[in-house]
Amino acid sequence: MTWTTAQHIALAFDFPVVFTRNAFDPENAALAEVFGRSGPGPHRAGVVIDAGLAAAMPGLADRARAYCAVHDAAIRLVAPPLTVPGGERAKADFAVVEAVWKLTYEAKLCRQSFLVVIGGGAVLDAAGFAAATAHRGVRLIRMPSTALAQNDAGVGVKNGVNAFGRKNYIGAFAPPYAVINDHALLATLPAREIRSGLAEAVKVAVVRDADFFARLCELAPLLAALDCDALEEADRRCAVAHLEHIASGGDPFEMGSARPLDFGHWAAHALEEATGGDMRHGEAVAVGMALDTLYAARVGLLPRADADAVLGLLEQLGLAVWHPALANLDMPAAVEAFREHLGGRLHLTLPTAIGRRIEVHDVDYASLAAARETLAGRGVPSGPACPGE
Amino acid sequence: MTWTTAQHIALAFDFPVVFTRNAFDPENAALAEVFGRSGPGPHRAGVVIDAGLAAAMPGLADRARAYCAVHDAAIRLVAPPLTVPGGERAKADFAVVEAVWKLTYEAKLCRQSFLVVIGGGAVLDAAGFAAATAHRGVRLIRMPSTALAQNDAGVGVKNGVNAFGRKNYIGAFAPPYAVINDHALLATLPAREIRSGLAEAVKVAVVRDADFFARLCELAPLLAALDCDALEEADRRCAVAHLEHIASGGDPFEMGSARPLDFGHWAAHALEEATGGDMRHGEAVAVGMALDTLYAARVGLLPRADADAVLGLLEQLGLAVWHPALANLDMPAAVEAFREHLGGRLHLTLPTAIGRRIEVHDVDYASLAAARETLAGRGVPSGPACPGE
Ligand SMILES: NC(=O)c1ccc[n+]([C@@H]2O[C@H](COP(=O)([O-])OP(=O)(O)OC[C@H]3O[C@@H](n4cnc5c(N)ncnc54)[C@H](O)[C@@H]3O)[C@@H](O)[C@H]2O)c1
Ligand SMILES: NC(=O)c1ccc[n+]([C@@H]2O[C@H](COP(=O)([O-])OP(=O)(O)OC[C@H]3O[C@@H](n4cnc5c(N)ncnc54)[C@H](O)[C@@H]3O)[C@@H](O)[C@H]2O)c1
Ligand SMILES: [Zn+2]
Ligand SMILES: [Zn+2]
Repeated sequence: MTWTTAQHIALAFDFPVVFTRNAFDPENAALAEVFGRSGPGPHRAGVVIDAGLAAAMPGLADRARAYCAVHDAAIRLVAPPLTVPGGERAKADFAVVEAVWKLTYEAKLCRQSFLVVIGGGAVLDAAGFAAATAHRGVRLIRMPSTALAQNDAGVGVKNGVNAFGRKNYIGAFAPPYAVINDHALLATLPAREIRSGLAEAVKVAVVRDADFFARLCELAPLLAALDCDALEEADRRCAVAHLEHIASGGDPFEMGSARPLDFGHWAAHALEEATGGDMRHGEAVAVGMALDTLYAARVGLLPRADADAVLGLLEQLGLAVWHPALANLDMPAAVEAFREHLGGRLHLTLPTAIGRRIEVHDVDYASLAAARETLAGRGVPSGPACPGE
Repeated sequence: MTWTTAQHIALAFDFPVVFTRNAFDPENAALAEVFGRSGPGPHRAGVVIDAGLAAAMPGLADRARAYCAVHDAAIRLVAPPLTVPGGERAKADFAVVEAVWKLTYEAKLCRQSFLVVIGGGAVLDAAGFAAATAHRGVRLIRMPSTALAQNDAGVGVKNGVNAFGRKNYIGAFAPPYAVINDHALLATLPAREIRSGLAEAVKVAVVRDADFFARLCELAPLLAALDCDALEEADRRCAVAHLEHIASGGDPFEMGSARPLDFGHWAAHALEEATGGDMRHGEAVAVGMALDTLYAARVGLLPRADADAVLGLLEQLGLAVWHPALANLDMPAAVEAFREHLGGRLHLTLPTAIGRRIEVHDVDYASLAAARETLAGRGVPSGPACPGE
């Protein structure tokens, strides 16, 4: 009487990630070409801009409009650019989400229309959730405007807003139609934001790419001085590493519990919460990675020299490996919150060598506390400790 | 200076659709086995129940709880079943969505936990959207409790709620973890609901399955008399046809504009709107299919005998092919609304023979009006006109 049919659905998403400068220069064809991929235009489009970016870069909205006017064979801007609050405020409630839903409705954007979102990771997350759910998905073009958004948040397949006091409690997996990483958008970014973004580059290098790690060590002095070309190279490579991980990691929609790119993130999330947003995400990730790196060395998973290299690189980049909030952190509770966030059994990613990793399912809290002690002693940044330097 | 990387993400979703009776009979292992697919339990679970169903079937929530208690090695019910308003009201605003988000949060359901939703298509759509977006997706087990939900709405990959006065304006594509089609849940369904659900069976038969059409003609007298076994067979076959279409139709997440399973639906949506919910979805689809069938015959796409067979089957099943609201319908506006809903260029599916279809991109409104005239003359149901009867 009971009978089962096995449903199998195969899907593929293809999207370009374009690395460029000055995307709204009328001569720059990149954005128009992205529209062109979907056939003869003009295609209906709306634009959403991060207010923080708009304030730092006056005239950006006008340049976006002018660009659309020049490329009117491809793009038909059907509403004035919508400016929304930037930073975590964008995700704190549904206000930005609802404003973007309203835009898509009033501008009659359909599933084959486009929403271009220009901003930091927070605006991309909130407006991206709205884009993914209006009509069950209008086409989203992300133009990330922070280092973190260009090298990590903006190239992935996730969006989200906060709810019940939990980060990203509501969200979806939704690949964008395209990503345009315009390095020139970072010109107005405060040094602290740029530096903080570098933590994600160190992260992907440590857990999956020894060559990139070596290159970061090579570039470290230039990166520390915020050299534009060096930063562009590091951010591009970091973005590509994230893209490759998502494409080839076997679990793009994170249905399992393993998340290698969350190396260092259990402590980072806890530190961000504990400091009430005073630490930038990358700053917290730097401390979290330093802690897990020392822990891995202490429990015998990682050679000591490799651990020193990781901490040395972080410090050379101007990223502190210690923060006073770590001293009081309830580490078992933080690990448990992370487990619950990922779901299922605990999976922590630890390096076993530069560029190699494993997943562990238990934590030896005595060793973790000892690692924290070591870190506390380290305190402020010291000299370089990169191999080959 | 501009450089592009092509991101390619391949994904697969596999889920079982179980056809059974009395799923909450402690002896029925189907639901527990679905939990078991995800490894050793017990797995955290919450339950959401359609209030209309709960009222019609007192004791259902208790039976669900008792079932979980018996199967406690697989299922750990971590909150009392949540009853939510049934019917279109469930989707009218975000109240049900928010109630389900709250449940997932308070019951600490993670991405590897389960939400079992029992109800009609409207509750499945609203609670399904909440499940798909809490933590970016907790595992959803659908237990559809109407004919339409079992043979169509509940086995697909979509969810949604209404907004801005538009049906399903907000939603997502999100395959369930499993579907349990419990035929016994339909016992309390009003005859009108059951009959209306048959329209979807006729739909899939006409556009993709001539054998099924012949079988429906054979079963028509039993179906018209609401014979339980005949209905179960028709609903199962209809569900399987929908599943096959989604799996093999080449566009499970509807990124293009073609939607063959929306045959007859442009007029249906308009009629549902025009009658303010007085027509059941299937009733509107029956009229919409009859109209498009006569239109196809009139413009020479469909043999007249096939058109007669379609209309005859609908009438034999007790589905009227005419409704007074059709007389006043602004048909060009309704077609345009449908085009906008799907996005891009107009795609209308029309039959070219029983079981075969094409997509057309233009409508000859004079012929459509003539088809409507013919239908108006037909008025109330007459005798059978099935081939082989
Ligand atoms: N979806 C994902 O996969 C993913 C991954 C990692 C992080 N995130 C999310 O990203 C968010 C953090 O993003 P972020 O680091 O980009 O910061 P942010 O979005 O919070 O922006 C920081 C500040 O910079 C401003 N700003 C943006 N661009 C600017 C520019 N070019 N010049 C000057 N000011 C500018 C913003 O208005 C804001 O005030 C977090 O909410 C995090 O959860 C998402
Ligand atoms: N997601 C999809 O792919 C998809 C496809 C088609 C339709 N839908 C949606 O499905 C909805 C219609 O669903 P429906 O036809 O199942 O009706 P419904 O969900 O509106 O339910 C109709 C009524 O029946 C009650 N009910 C449910 N089960 C019952 C039972 N066993 N006994 C007695 N009463 C019961 C409900 O409380 C409600 O009052 C629409 O909102 C439509 O948009 C979704
Ligand atoms: Zn991060
Ligand atoms: Zn339908």
